[in-house]
Amino acid sequence: MQSPDKEAVKETVRQPPQHAPLVQFPVVAGQLQIGGQPLTRLADRIGRTPFYAYGREQLSARVKSLREALPAGIELHYAMKANPMPAVVGHMARLVDGIDVASGGELQVALDAGADPREISFAGPGKSELELRQALAAGILINIESFREVTLLARLSAETGYAARVAVRVNPDFELKSSGMKMGGGPKQFGVDAEQVPDLLAQIGQAGLGFEGFHLFAGSQNLRPEAIIEAQQKSFELALRLAESAPAPVRTLNLGGGFGIPYFPGEQRLDLAPIGQNLAALQARAKQELGGTRLVIELGRYLVGEAGVYVCRVVDRKVSRGQVYLVTDGGLHHHLAASGNFGQVIRKNYPLAIGNRMDAEMEPGVSVVGPLCTPLDLLGERMSLPHAEPGDLVVVFQSGAYGVSASPQNFLSHPAAAEVLV
Amino acid sequence: MQSPDKEAVKETVRQPPQHAPLVQFPVVAGQLQIGGQPLTRLADRIGRTPFYAYGREQLSARVKSLREALPAGIELHYAMKANPMPAVVGHMARLVDGIDVASGGELQVALDAGADPREISFAGPGKSELELRQALAAGILINIESFREVTLLARLSAETGYAARVAVRVNPDFELKSSGMKMGGGPKQFGVDAEQVPDLLAQIGQAGLGFEGFHLFAGSQNLRPEAIIEAQQKSFELALRLAESAPAPVRTLNLGGGFGIPYFPGEQRLDLAPIGQNLAALQARAKQELGGTRLVIELGRYLVGEAGVYVCRVVDRKVSRGQVYLVTDGGLHHHLAASGNFGQVIRKNYPLAIGNRMDAEMEPGVSVVGPLCTPLDLLGERMSLPHAEPGDLVVVFQSGAYGVSASPQNFLSHPAAAEVLV
Repeated sequence: MQSPDKEAVKETVRQPPQHAPLVQFPVVAGQLQIGGQPLTRLADRIGRTPFYAYGREQLSARVKSLREALPAGIELHYAMKANPMPAVVGHMARLVDGIDVASGGELQVALDAGADPREISFAGPGKSELELRQALAAGILINIESFREVTLLARLSAETGYAARVAVRVNPDFELKSSGMKMGGGPKQFGVDAEQVPDLLAQIGQAGLGFEGFHLFAGSQNLRPEAIIEAQQKSFELALRLAESAPAPVRTLNLGGGFGIPYFPGEQRLDLAPIGQNLAALQARAKQELGGTRLVIELGRYLVGEAGVYVCRVVDRKVSRGQVYLVTDGGLHHHLAASGNFGQVIRKNYPLAIGNRMDAEMEPGVSVVGPLCTPLDLLGERMSLPHAEPGDLVVVFQSGAYGVSASPQNFLSHPAAAEVLV
Repeated sequence: MQSPDKEAVKETVRQPPQHAPLVQFPVVAGQLQIGGQPLTRLADRIGRTPFYAYGREQLSARVKSLREALPAGIELHYAMKANPMPAVVGHMARLVDGIDVASGGELQVALDAGADPREISFAGPGKSELELRQALAAGILINIESFREVTLLARLSAETGYAARVAVRVNPDFELKSSGMKMGGGPKQFGVDAEQVPDLLAQIGQAGLGFEGFHLFAGSQNLRPEAIIEAQQKSFELALRLAESAPAPVRTLNLGGGFGIPYFPGEQRLDLAPIGQNLAALQARAKQELGGTRLVIELGRYLVGEAGVYVCRVVDRKVSRGQVYLVTDGGLHHHLAASGNFGQVIRKNYPLAIGNRMDAEMEPGVSVVGPLCTPLDLLGERMSLPHAEPGDLVVVFQSGAYGVSASPQNFLSHPAAAEVLV
């Protein structure tokens, strides 16, 4: 007789972790629907594969559900580094309260997209003199990340006559637990160490720069609400302490983001309810203790990641020593993250589908590879997928963020991926 | 009294592994010399940072020393995927015996560079119909990697009247030991399993395609001569066996490459002498047993990797909780491999220098980061480097291969890196 524990183990073996359900794109007659049309029709409309497609409806729905989960008055910013496609930035600019840029190049796209310069902020650990001058000329909020930037902004502002609007990006004295990437705590290139901030604030005051607030960003891609809540609370407390040294009222407090989306088997969607409750409490405190500071949440991946797919076409179907390979016209050069080479320590499979055969019989143990002459060019390893043949369309879900812009497109000189907003 | 073993351990602790000596670029008066000029002058000539610079002299010297180490008659091919800069391909095309391309895009560059189509070969697991048609029209050698390609080439050749020149890329029944990347053995998307090759050869014969030889590529970035020799011997034996089923004489046998270069602390340069001896023995056997087959060695990284540097400028110098950060205008978006995010399981430091202060006092524990808002953007972690300040030039050595073309240039919309051949 087996012990219950052994039964439980067997059950675990029988049911490996699954990808979170992907319901953002409907399926009709075996075809994934993107932008309200069957995937094969969309591919024909674009005229080539591979492509990225982002859904307007999905982007709008995500912002709407986020607004519903968070208290009124919390400002939502889009960190456009997640997806800088101009059409996407244009769509997002009309939905959110501000755009966060990470370079002079992104600033141009944000302005072209119609974002209000008053609601654009700029962060980055190595801003060039040229970028700071651009930012001053545009009149956007600059997140200061070093003492050098104070000196430089003071000089540039004096030279040009453009008023400097600044916030201080703080490297906190704590970390965001369980984050995909830690962006604060310990020694970091980001921001200014919390303990140096009072000195920095004094210099900002002396230099006559227009101080508006603080920016704290502890980490990214977090799926544990309690960790996000803890980071927001600690960030708020830290901002309260630092506000005592500020040369002007704290008008804006950017609490960062860190909201994750489920990529890999076993991961679940983030529960926003406790985060919303926490932000309501912080908002009440901000009113009382900071005199009405605006609280900003800055999100990239969370806003756009689930709204996008990467689509490539099966070019060949090979069986090598019993292993099925679907060789596609897309891969690592367009989607580095899905190949497991973008900050992942252990490669895991993104959720994949055969978008024009959603109801075909499943085939186990299928690997999906790209056309590159490197074993790194792997989109899916030994997955269960609908049976596919050359001509069929492989879909990589959760691809709206850190996709083509975070990939080495020129590697091996294959054609670039198309990008569409539908 | 301490035992000798403990002394040895202490010695090891005192002397951590070092980077292999980098003597390919001279130093004059504290300045690294690239293309015969001081680095600061080269930077002024280019007019901006960051940039990649490749040395003509270093490229030529590498081919020369390789020719000296290998027996006469061994053909050297350049796998241009390692560095597809047109000027580099043009330089290499005049030095080597052939160019290996991995896409239709690379084929165009090789032809523009003046490479002889008779000496261009094309490999890749997912060749599109368009690419195969281009290859036929150009009259280059196509490495067949699947049964589908036989059928397709037969049809395209009949439709167009262009003769098909083909070789068979074999997925061997062994692996190249100790390789950076395994490209053969076990199930693979590359080539056709050795045991299926006789069937494939029969189909090639029936289809009337012009058979010319075999291509075997077991792995890459190997620093152990004995592993390379073993792979070459096994590849040769396998080719001998497969030749019995060939529809025509084996005129060319591409034994792949796999020659590594030292990137990380503790790695030494590859000893070519035993490899040369082994190739001489195989050459003699090829004459006798295969009737004068040409032996080809295909190298990418080994030919160009050490001839290139990546150069970026220090924008800021920050001290965060005791840790020095040099924040530069370049990083992961130009040099993904140096950031440790291109196929490395454990991140290690590339060899770095401050190219305009080669004789400045060394400072320990310095980290070099880029301008991106991600902790992945790390070029050097806690290294000993000459003391540097904003304006100084950080040099990343061993950057001639898999540099800018293998990097996500558009990530965060920073300016592209310049590339020069000097």
